[in-house]
Amino acid sequence: MTSRCSVFIATSLDGFIARTDGSIDWLDQANKLIPPGEDCGFAEFMAGADALVMGRATFEQVLSFPQWYYGDKPVYVLSRTMAELPAGTPDTVRLHALEPREMVRVAAEHGHTRLYIDGGRTIQGFLTAGLIDDLTITVIPVLLGAGLRLFGELAADVPLTHVSTKAFPFGFVQSRYNIGGNP
Amino acid sequence: MTSRCSVFIATSLDGFIARTDGSIDWLDQANKLIPPGEDCGFAEFMAGADALVMGRATFEQVLSFPQWYYGDKPVYVLSRTMAELPAGTPDTVRLHALEPREMVRVAAEHGHTRLYIDGGRTIQGFLTAGLIDDLTITVIPVLLGAGLRLFGELAADVPLTHVSTKAFPFGFVQSRYNIGGNP
Repeated sequence: MTSRCSVFIATSLDGFIARTDGSIDWLDQANKLIPPGEDCGFAEFMAGADALVMGRATFEQVLSFPQWYYGDKPVYVLSRTMAELPAGTPDTVRLHALEPREMVRVAAEHGHTRLYIDGGRTIQGFLTAGLIDDLTITVIPVLLGAGLRLFGELAADVPLTHVSTKAFPFGFVQSRYNIGGNP
Repeated sequence: MTSRCSVFIATSLDGFIARTDGSIDWLDQANKLIPPGEDCGFAEFMAGADALVMGRATFEQVLSFPQWYYGDKPVYVLSRTMAELPAGTPDTVRLHALEPREMVRVAAEHGHTRLYIDGGRTIQGFLTAGLIDDLTITVIPVLLGAGLRLFGELAADVPLTHVSTKAFPFGFVQSRYNIGGNP
């Protein structure tokens, strides 16, 4: 298996990716500070991904956005409870009820080996399964105090290797880490 | 009141300052990567502080260290349960059972207006009371999955202003924020 699973996500300084009810109003607010033409590396990151993998909650959220951010990129939605995709779902989306490792295998069968893993619970599931290769985390300058966390419990410490950090003039700090310690 | 309360602390990427039992073995391990002569700005930060304020748990931990890191700097220990300071405590240490705001006032009466606030619960108490002015957070490249968090619940969002970020070649990423949004 030579698949690579990557995370690209924003968090508050206290580690939340959304409020308890899933709201990202604080992120929408912060994004207004981004000057036109700046995407904090999202297009470049997306260009390096063959497909996305996300959970149902994140999928329902991105469906609610006014814009579909993933173009023609295949999107694998992981859910045990969703029987079928909602009407109007782009036909690039596929629904699966698979464990992370199985999902990676199935995606690879479709030629998708560079996977963008999105959504809190999905990221945690892939991390726990030891399947995440790198994390790009953009820290938004706000403390929320409560909400849905990016990171959850782990069976053991996960050492990371810092790759790079960029501070944007509008206050976002983006760091990239590879999973695993220095050789 | 013109006191300034500052935080200077290390966390794991998932936001923990210690394991659940208070252990900082992961931090001790990471600190071995720091080359001689590098202190990640600690001496400069300390030079700008008139005194430290910390809770009992942090105080007992620093007492257990082979070295006393605070020199002649006054240290205010906040505790409701500690009746007196242990034998052998440096005479720069004073014990108080005060609320954060009262502590700041008492310190100011002693001429200590630039305070280094340390320890998870103490920092959270000062943050909740709206008394923290700036945070310098050094992110250690590891995920712990569990432990004592730097940040806790808040009554409302706390906007921050990013001041600066420095990535060290040994993988630590240190960011400084002021509390409050951009003017």
